[in-house]
Amino acid sequence: MIEIERKFLVTAETFKQEAIKQIRIVQGFLSTDPERTVRIRIKGATGFITVKGKSDDEGLSRFEWEKEITVEEADTLLQKCLPGVIDKIRYEVPMGKFVFEVDEFFGDNEGLVVAEVELESKDEEYPKPAWLGAEVTGDIKYYNSQLSSNPYNNW
Amino acid sequence: MIEIERKFLVTAETFKQEAIKQIRIVQGFLSTDPERTVRIRIKGATGFITVKGKSDDEGLSRFEWEKEITVEEADTLLQKCLPGVIDKIRYEVPMGKFVFEVDEFFGDNEGLVVAEVELESKDEEYPKPAWLGAEVTGDIKYYNSQLSSNPYNNW
Repeated sequence: MIEIERKFLVTAETFKQEAIKQIRIVQGFLSTDPERTVRIRIKGATGFITVKGKSDDEGLSRFEWEKEITVEEADTLLQKCLPGVIDKIRYEVPMGKFVFEVDEFFGDNEGLVVAEVELESKDEEYPKPAWLGAEVTGDIKYYNSQLSSNPYNNW
Repeated sequence: MIEIERKFLVTAETFKQEAIKQIRIVQGFLSTDPERTVRIRIKGATGFITVKGKSDDEGLSRFEWEKEITVEEADTLLQKCLPGVIDKIRYEVPMGKFVFEVDEFFGDNEGLVVAEVELESKDEEYPKPAWLGAEVTGDIKYYNSQLSSNPYNNW
């Protein structure tokens, strides 16, 4: 299956009224080399270490390996990460058969809120709630690895 | 989590007569940043992912976090590593209550043999067998991550 995601800015807090779930995510990077990114993440009560490769030429598939670790381990590893830890709350906002994942950032990315929705094809129709703003799909400055080194409040 | 280790050059092959165990180690690096090295290792029938920090000012203690993974996972991750895979045999050489880990390198590091001993405190006395040469504790060019990008045969 080919996964296609579109990413948007979020222009109003009203999405929170429609959220069914929210979870705190804190993450940092041991390496931001696009060929071998190494991410440390705490998501709720679980830790993860994740290695990602570069996207293929079409941008459709990307190597990913992930291992669950304890929050304590992740905490220790976050202290070794490159400067610029990402701190955000991820909201799940269902809309019919779709689920928007909305990330509200804190710290140096405070003020930034982005939503992602996964589609089955490039031209599939998707809901456009009132809080959905400009599309930023493919804009690398919104990649989390980039927000880490060049946060929103520096733009 | 913090190791106290001293590292030495090895000046004679006689250590092999005292070795009780030897194991082949193949390893690569996802990051060679000395502050946050990420190593993938296959040691015998086991895989590992390891994060190491930089030594403290005296070069004696160094942050280390390690997780066991399968050889298959390690194999996949080795393919994502930076060029310059390290290939060595590690000998375990017991000396009283201490164990020297002696690494004999191959490939681009052929000719290099180093020994490490783990101590309980920075000033603990340790054995000095005849084959133990100059101390190189804290010298980053002997870090395996550095031997990967700048191997011994290039020095």
